[in-house]
Amino acid sequence: MNIDNLAVNTIRTLAMDAVEKARSGHPGMPMGCAPIAYTLYSKVMRHSPSNPSWLNRDRFILSAGHGSMLLYSTLHLTGYGITLDDIKNFRQWQSITPGHPEFGLTPGVETTTGPLGQGFGNAVGFAVAQEFLASKFNKPGYKIIDHYIYGICSDGDLMEGISYEAASLAGHLKLGKIIFFYDSNKISIDGSTDITFTEDVARRFEAANWHVIKVDDGNDTDKLQKAAKDAQKDPRPSLIITKTHIGYGSPNKQDKASSHGSPLGAEEIKLTKANLGWDYDEPFTIPEEVTKHFESLRECLDESEAIWNKLFENYKKKFPGEAESLLEYMKGNFDTSFFDEFDDFPADGKKIATRQASGKVIAKIADYYPTMLGGSADLAESNNTTIPGSPDFSASDYSGRNFRYGVREHAMGNILHAMAMYGGVIPYGGTFLIFSDYMRPAIRLAALNKVSPVFVFTHDSIGLGEDGPTHQPVEQLMSLRAIPNTLVFRPADANETKYAWKYAVGHKSGPVILVLTRQGLPVLDRSLYPAASEVEKGAYILYDTNGEPDIILIASGSEVHVTLESAKELEAEGYSVRVVNMVCTRLYDLQSKNYQDQVLPPNVTCRVSVEAGISLGWERYVGLDGDSVAIDHFGASAPAEVLFEKYGFTTEHICEVAKRNYSRIND
Amino acid sequence: MNIDNLAVNTIRTLAMDAVEKARSGHPGMPMGCAPIAYTLYSKVMRHSPSNPSWLNRDRFILSAGHGSMLLYSTLHLTGYGITLDDIKNFRQWQSITPGHPEFGLTPGVETTTGPLGQGFGNAVGFAVAQEFLASKFNKPGYKIIDHYIYGICSDGDLMEGISYEAASLAGHLKLGKIIFFYDSNKISIDGSTDITFTEDVARRFEAANWHVIKVDDGNDTDKLQKAAKDAQKDPRPSLIITKTHIGYGSPNKQDKASSHGSPLGAEEIKLTKANLGWDYDEPFTIPEEVTKHFESLRECLDESEAIWNKLFENYKKKFPGEAESLLEYMKGNFDTSFFDEFDDFPADGKKIATRQASGKVIAKIADYYPTMLGGSADLAESNNTTIPGSPDFSASDYSGRNFRYGVREHAMGNILHAMAMYGGVIPYGGTFLIFSDYMRPAIRLAALNKVSPVFVFTHDSIGLGEDGPTHQPVEQLMSLRAIPNTLVFRPADANETKYAWKYAVGHKSGPVILVLTRQGLPVLDRSLYPAASEVEKGAYILYDTNGEPDIILIASGSEVHVTLESAKELEAEGYSVRVVNMVCTRLYDLQSKNYQDQVLPPNVTCRVSVEAGISLGWERYVGLDGDSVAIDHFGASAPAEVLFEKYGFTTEHICEVAKRNYSRIND
Repeated sequence: MNIDNLAVNTIRTLAMDAVEKARSGHPGMPMGCAPIAYTLYSKVMRHSPSNPSWLNRDRFILSAGHGSMLLYSTLHLTGYGITLDDIKNFRQWQSITPGHPEFGLTPGVETTTGPLGQGFGNAVGFAVAQEFLASKFNKPGYKIIDHYIYGICSDGDLMEGISYEAASLAGHLKLGKIIFFYDSNKISIDGSTDITFTEDVARRFEAANWHVIKVDDGNDTDKLQKAAKDAQKDPRPSLIITKTHIGYGSPNKQDKASSHGSPLGAEEIKLTKANLGWDYDEPFTIPEEVTKHFESLRECLDESEAIWNKLFENYKKKFPGEAESLLEYMKGNFDTSFFDEFDDFPADGKKIATRQASGKVIAKIADYYPTMLGGSADLAESNNTTIPGSPDFSASDYSGRNFRYGVREHAMGNILHAMAMYGGVIPYGGTFLIFSDYMRPAIRLAALNKVSPVFVFTHDSIGLGEDGPTHQPVEQLMSLRAIPNTLVFRPADANETKYAWKYAVGHKSGPVILVLTRQGLPVLDRSLYPAASEVEKGAYILYDTNGEPDIILIASGSEVHVTLESAKELEAEGYSVRVVNMVCTRLYDLQSKNYQDQVLPPNVTCRVSVEAGISLGWERYVGLDGDSVAIDHFGASAPAEVLFEKYGFTTEHICEVAKRNYSRIND
Repeated sequence: MNIDNLAVNTIRTLAMDAVEKARSGHPGMPMGCAPIAYTLYSKVMRHSPSNPSWLNRDRFILSAGHGSMLLYSTLHLTGYGITLDDIKNFRQWQSITPGHPEFGLTPGVETTTGPLGQGFGNAVGFAVAQEFLASKFNKPGYKIIDHYIYGICSDGDLMEGISYEAASLAGHLKLGKIIFFYDSNKISIDGSTDITFTEDVARRFEAANWHVIKVDDGNDTDKLQKAAKDAQKDPRPSLIITKTHIGYGSPNKQDKASSHGSPLGAEEIKLTKANLGWDYDEPFTIPEEVTKHFESLRECLDESEAIWNKLFENYKKKFPGEAESLLEYMKGNFDTSFFDEFDDFPADGKKIATRQASGKVIAKIADYYPTMLGGSADLAESNNTTIPGSPDFSASDYSGRNFRYGVREHAMGNILHAMAMYGGVIPYGGTFLIFSDYMRPAIRLAALNKVSPVFVFTHDSIGLGEDGPTHQPVEQLMSLRAIPNTLVFRPADANETKYAWKYAVGHKSGPVILVLTRQGLPVLDRSLYPAASEVEKGAYILYDTNGEPDIILIASGSEVHVTLESAKELEAEGYSVRVVNMVCTRLYDLQSKNYQDQVLPPNVTCRVSVEAGISLGWERYVGLDGDSVAIDHFGASAPAEVLFEKYGFTTEHICEVAKRNYSRIND
């Protein structure tokens, strides 16, 4: 057996053995795609096993994340920090070899995959970030950012809507660095793809302006290598449709769904190994020749990194400022002290929507940070997401900073997530809050991966008005707060929007969601109220009458203003009232118990929340004794002011609820 | 001006005037697509303005729902129950002409649209329901169900992932009754589609096995009519790519994004009317010839309905049982008393996963109701959604009852929603609970539309085990409960699963979500515990020691069992403990205050919730004094039993939390 075949079979057998030992996992895909992974990591990709965060490495994305053992086996053999013990610990508590690859946990894993289609879309985000940063930092003779993004995707990936959205955008933007192998094995979990998936994939990708190559034998590493080389030369993104065999080598399970998601079983493994000409009885065997082979490959790889290091050393000397910025940005270090230098919005009696304030803040940040890059899913004017004076990011100008996602919210979320993982940029994207529902899987992965894209969700309530219930978020706010590790800010005025943005730019460990109004809001006079920078505590006491409060009103966003008025009304009636501005529930939850008790003293149980969304979740703050002015039903089509009135967001109604609550508790 | 042009211009001017009066709305699309709507409603469709629920009517879906005035104008002119006053009340409080069309509110509106792509997908659900019911109820010589599904979709619709998923499935299933006009106006909100959407739409649809027709002049009603006729003849679904002009007729805003989402303004309306050769100064004018023209059209339409009525009368005589069933099913009347006839699952000590129990119940329902139709998004075996003994629903057999959605969760949700709107069937679909995130926009529309598809979401917690955090739902349960009008059941054992299904089949006013375990669960011995049919109350007292409880433990689903054990442990330590089984929070919230207080007496504040998901939301039941055994972070890849232990779902930890809580409250 030649060394290529032996290496490929080593990947296969490691995958089979690991799944068998875990008694859980997906052997079929690694067995079918082992030649692709081997070819990429040994003959095609420029990467650095000893330095997985090498800036100019080629990226690899296993979109079909269930085939994780393909990646772990390959990473182990090529010399990343995954030991054979790690492989033996596949899918066990606290191992670095989980069921699906997880970003940040395992060296060499570029993104978390598993939910199908997401990895495919991530490639687009990587490519955008790369082209954008290359346009900013590369200099004549110094192509310091110049690599490919490889991946493997499955039938399942390509059936998901997200993959079509992402492909359409990648083709439109001519993101030629993307090279995907499509693992065309004609099998999905429920059986042959003939039962569900008969579209012409080549034609579909051609329609989306991709370069399509077919490889008729997925075991032929020469053909695979040639296809990758051809793909590199084409200016369009490439899809290499590769005829593969799920469970390759298994006498009884090859080409069958039965090899997909369960261990093969000891007996079938024995038969498969025999069938593959594998001479080793012991599980997890790596033949010495294979070990040596990969060692020699590593020398080559080290050399290519060394060449780049030399280039970058010279770059640093010639462009020290750029080099320093790039390195800092790639680490996600975006200092936010400059925010203090630009003026707060004046409390001059003029109303300003928080989306408008956000637009002005974006302009300031973009002015300061050249790698801020963002836009909207076809609602740029409504979301106020445009960077003034910048061209669009387009196929003819990758330095443009206004990104047009089209009506592709899911792809937007996914690309934002990927740009944040790639690093270097401050990625943001806008749409109406209601359409956050289209991109929850992507937001969730950003949260799981602890990266911090910024979501600008405007038109955040019935304040959207006449467009009606299909466009009026009701449950979205609380549903987004429900995602672990996600910060949802709902600022009450322009200045809180500024400081929410400040927090977002400095944040490095989870997505930040800014929830903003369509309608104009007064700018609170901070000489009368605490500083807007208090938003960093999540919640703060905005207003207090003397002494211990009888009643605490807790509000967020646009409802803070009517709540303040209500407090003053109640005060006039002799109640002692506190208004708590709940800008970001999770940040408040993360404060010390001491601070929390200061804001919401446990003995004050007369508490009323005021938010134009569902009440579920507010009980965390108002308890069983409190009450909520909320919207526990869908909205309606009518002017915003009519809706706010009909649904009880008036001083009259809020006061009534508060007084009723007070009486009930004190009777 | 010929009558066709005059009628088309009447649609245009009504739309312009209504948007102007509302000072809000989207005039551009109705102005561009008026000839399409006119042609469909006057020359192509068989429909019955006087009887909008005529069983065999052609359906029309305005996927680009923002163009609602196109639909309202056309429905008014053709004689549906929309008055001119309704049109003048466009987008106002309690009008029947909301910003986006709403199912159930306005006669002639077949589905709620607005969130882009959803209406396009709904057509697929309609077509599936139609073909399925036709296969069941049509008889030789009696094609009682035989109509088309027309629609208009926009660039925005076609950019959304859902439209690709739905198109792929429609082509695969050869759903030739679907005929969509694609309003190709080259304009999206942010400007020319050249900036975001340059894929070859014709080629894309051909790749998905669609029949594609091009109409180069969207104002030519003859060409539009011919295209529709050609489409009718082709066995594939058809896309008619129609070159249109947004804001047609407006001298300054035609072909510009500025006509999309804002009133044209009085001056521009004047210019446009002049330019269109419109002779009437008064807004909302309907020329007498146009009124008469539509009156005469109505006669034709009445005749075609009369022919069908005659056919159906004969059908009724010949097939009285079928006719009666069909009419009942179409009304959504699915009697559930037969559930009482099949045995409960025995409490014989054997464990059974609730997904398995669900599979067995599905078989029973399918046995009883021939129009139960469902399946899974490529996880049929895992979701236990297969109807035994039935073939697949496929292009060659529309009577098959096992539906294979492929890895297309969003399309699945959307199709289920549409089938429920169409009526006649009991539609259900399964996937892992985690992937409910992919279909939230569709679930939400089902909730808004008060229709009741059944979602079978299995693998409902960390109990999923080794697949890890990408596949382990944590926030999904509470996020689904957050959707108004949606019932989320999380049964604790096989029999509760049965009664949750019973509730689902009988329910008619919102989606039902069944959240089921991967892992086996004991079957509770109902001679020791209250009847499983108690699930219909949402929550019930499962276990009580003597006297008023010191501690109430509230649990759902798989956690009920460890909670019961904990209660018995606490009881042994001398505490008086109650276990409340919280199967469906919303149903419990809908019970009388009296019942609620009986289950959770207000004076018992030592309450601990136990659920393998986030704690947010549980405060509604445990209050500020209580506590939650919950998972407020992402899961991990490991065997299920390890995870349950590490995350504190053990009697030891639950008892500890309960006792700590008890001490705190009583100290």
